[in-house]
Amino acid sequence: MVTEYVLRKLEEILGASNVHATPGQVKAYECDGYVAFKSLPGAVIFPQSTDEVSHVLKLFSEQRVPYVARGAGTGLSGGATPTRGDVVISLAKMDQLLSLDLENHRAVVQPGFVNLELTKRVAGKSFYYAPDPSSQSVCTIGGNFAENAGGSHCLKYGVTTNHVTAATIVLPDGEIVEVGSSFGDEDGLDLLGLYVGSEGTLGIATEITVKILKKPQAVQTIMALFDRVEDASASVSGFIAAGIIPAACEMMDQLAMQAVDKSRYHVGYPSDVEAVLIVEVDGLEATVRALSKRVMDVCTENHVREVRSAKSEEERALWWSSRKMAFPAIGRISPDYMVQDGVIPRSRLAEVLKRIETISQTSGLRIANVFHAGDGNLHPLICYDSKKGETDIAQDVGRQILELCVDVGGSITGEHGVGIEKIAEMRYQFSQEELTLQQAIRDQLDPKGLCNAGKLIPTPSRCMEMKGAASPSVSSLEQILSASGSPQARLAR
Amino acid sequence: MVTEYVLRKLEEILGASNVHATPGQVKAYECDGYVAFKSLPGAVIFPQSTDEVSHVLKLFSEQRVPYVARGAGTGLSGGATPTRGDVVISLAKMDQLLSLDLENHRAVVQPGFVNLELTKRVAGKSFYYAPDPSSQSVCTIGGNFAENAGGSHCLKYGVTTNHVTAATIVLPDGEIVEVGSSFGDEDGLDLLGLYVGSEGTLGIATEITVKILKKPQAVQTIMALFDRVEDASASVSGFIAAGIIPAACEMMDQLAMQAVDKSRYHVGYPSDVEAVLIVEVDGLEATVRALSKRVMDVCTENHVREVRSAKSEEERALWWSSRKMAFPAIGRISPDYMVQDGVIPRSRLAEVLKRIETISQTSGLRIANVFHAGDGNLHPLICYDSKKGETDIAQDVGRQILELCVDVGGSITGEHGVGIEKIAEMRYQFSQEELTLQQAIRDQLDPKGLCNAGKLIPTPSRCMEMKGAASPSVSSLEQILSASGSPQARLAR
Repeated sequence: MVTEYVLRKLEEILGASNVHATPGQVKAYECDGYVAFKSLPGAVIFPQSTDEVSHVLKLFSEQRVPYVARGAGTGLSGGATPTRGDVVISLAKMDQLLSLDLENHRAVVQPGFVNLELTKRVAGKSFYYAPDPSSQSVCTIGGNFAENAGGSHCLKYGVTTNHVTAATIVLPDGEIVEVGSSFGDEDGLDLLGLYVGSEGTLGIATEITVKILKKPQAVQTIMALFDRVEDASASVSGFIAAGIIPAACEMMDQLAMQAVDKSRYHVGYPSDVEAVLIVEVDGLEATVRALSKRVMDVCTENHVREVRSAKSEEERALWWSSRKMAFPAIGRISPDYMVQDGVIPRSRLAEVLKRIETISQTSGLRIANVFHAGDGNLHPLICYDSKKGETDIAQDVGRQILELCVDVGGSITGEHGVGIEKIAEMRYQFSQEELTLQQAIRDQLDPKGLCNAGKLIPTPSRCMEMKGAASPSVSSLEQILSASGSPQARLAR
Repeated sequence: MVTEYVLRKLEEILGASNVHATPGQVKAYECDGYVAFKSLPGAVIFPQSTDEVSHVLKLFSEQRVPYVARGAGTGLSGGATPTRGDVVISLAKMDQLLSLDLENHRAVVQPGFVNLELTKRVAGKSFYYAPDPSSQSVCTIGGNFAENAGGSHCLKYGVTTNHVTAATIVLPDGEIVEVGSSFGDEDGLDLLGLYVGSEGTLGIATEITVKILKKPQAVQTIMALFDRVEDASASVSGFIAAGIIPAACEMMDQLAMQAVDKSRYHVGYPSDVEAVLIVEVDGLEATVRALSKRVMDVCTENHVREVRSAKSEEERALWWSSRKMAFPAIGRISPDYMVQDGVIPRSRLAEVLKRIETISQTSGLRIANVFHAGDGNLHPLICYDSKKGETDIAQDVGRQILELCVDVGGSITGEHGVGIEKIAEMRYQFSQEELTLQQAIRDQLDPKGLCNAGKLIPTPSRCMEMKGAASPSVSSLEQILSASGSPQARLAR
């Protein structure tokens, strides 16, 4: 519950125009990209500096006000969704590039700075920012930091945690600390590593130092069409076995190809191929020529039907659009769909895809597969029709796929995070002792349990505490709590 | 104090032959590679399995016995040195390669497994393990894990934390947990990242999953001799600006060259050049040809006196030996020397080297510089003569250099760790709030303060607790405690 006293104090700290509390004002913040659970925030506020965030968190700590930070709200696991009338701390007005050091390859940004904007700012000097989630044109680096975001080019270049070198953090008690080190790895305990990917549960990053990279001299994009998924999978293993780490290595299956070919990003994939690989290699001109040839050779050894490189920048852009727009394109072939996100060992790709096909047949739901094949990071798209009452089946299919990922030695999320969505599935992957250990660290940093509570770690103690918290949305809360024990109950009805 | 009861219990758990407690048996464990502080352990034990480690830590927790884990003892900051009669838990008998998955590029090792041994085991299949500290022929992967070890090739390939994907950890209460994920980044809080580089303060890793990489098809090593340090520094920035990330980029100055040329690794460096760069590029044949040419071109643009590539594998090996043996070689030109380890932004290299030269002149002590130039990771070697009473001056010079590193935006250790050696210097880099935050996490995981206490984080509270602990080496302890406040007092006299 956000009291009148708290609202008045917030207005004093931030100015009245930066404190939104009417239902009309806060409605748009009831969820992020994970639309299956919605709950109104107690207020939405727009701080503009580290000091303002610090004053706000001191107030919230004193008054025991729960809160959640939000970037662009593109997250797919509910990480920025309020669960118990939390105040949403929007970082949209903290959107500045604070400094740029091209010589040492560093940029310092505020958390609301948009991912792609950083590349645009430095492109003229032939630099770029490597992590490239599909939402990069709108998502923020603060959100990427919280979720340890990945992207198509993370196979070669690594995910967000590999590109962040330091951060200013406002702790839940309002204290301001620096973690990491602009140059060199962190001395002492690696708090920066702990904060990246902590999904906003340990404080709020208000300044983030990232690496910017020099653009490669040349890039070549290769498309390979396979009659059989097994051959595409074997090619992926084949690249790596040959010592090639492509900049990106993406796979789409037949259903996904059909869907994108019905969208404006029509490539014209033959209707009878089972899988397409989009492989990108980069580096010096000579490197790229040699790598392209080897990639094509490996595909040929694995019975590719057709393989060729992009003839123009336009063709390359089209291929990438067809891949990056595959999720929304599924909306054209199915009334509803659910995106999953799991990781498996690369060597088990063909086997896992076969087992997903079996799950599809047993459940009667179509499943399209679009994924970062090089990383073994699957994104099965489960097609269903909520009007036909298939939501529960889709949920169950998602759960089966994640169990399968853990079974073969993988994990329950590659890049979308745990948030609300996968809080129950954390139990597939971690023992109670392991979850208790995570919770112990979280309790130490956020002893009052105000900071994005009800997310990330399913613990009985945390649940009890949440039940005790004043909240305008107890019924929604109960949905989440019951979800912690039962994945099937996870969707808001 | 290790009581008779504890020793008897240890013998029950480990067998009598794995419990050493006589002064003669434990003497060799009084320090690691940081020889400036020595203190006898209460006992030295040799567990052989995760379960044994777990039983031992349960006993230690119950009996409040302080302890420190030890790999090969090659650390340079005292991380494996007992400080208050701690039991040394040697992991030397846990030295097995537990499993190898070439297809997915993973190996699982026990902590006492030797770094270079892993490369030897997989070299026949054209794989290798990338992190290559100079001590790699003897140091263990457990020690590398604890210290987040670096190496010459970490410029391109990253340090230990980039190569570890999962670990089995025995917590200070004896509980066994898994952190990380063999495939995919860790879900939930990144505990693996927290454990890597925690210098043995949060528990003991008993199984470690690491990445193994495919050997590059080709490697070329280039040597460039410069009349002026500034030109060598500018070349390093030049490579990176040209978008080249060499596999390694090492620099030695005149004094270091003179020293190695007096050792068995005589290269014959001209006596009047100020700096040599040893640059390695790797990849496909075509890549390596192109990269070598660009590296040489950049050197030429920066007024190199002579630049050439290794003509044979023997020549390449000699160049590398001259670099890797530079530390001991300094022993030939100075009765004593002290290795420092700090990080600076690459762009400030020339300026910092000039300021180190000024420190050298003011102090009257010669300083050789041998370092990972591409990473900005300095290793100044401070030459002194303890018999002439120069120890304090050398200490002071080391302190000045670290302050300089922090001043220009760098950090106090690149790869040698904090341990005992730099516990005071942590205050240069971190505010009290930041240190308190680190300590809070440590206290949470090791509430009794038994696990490598007195290392890594200087805190008054921890010091008080240590003072209260039963200890056979209070005088040594006081040296450390006083060192926490005063870097000059750090060496055992």
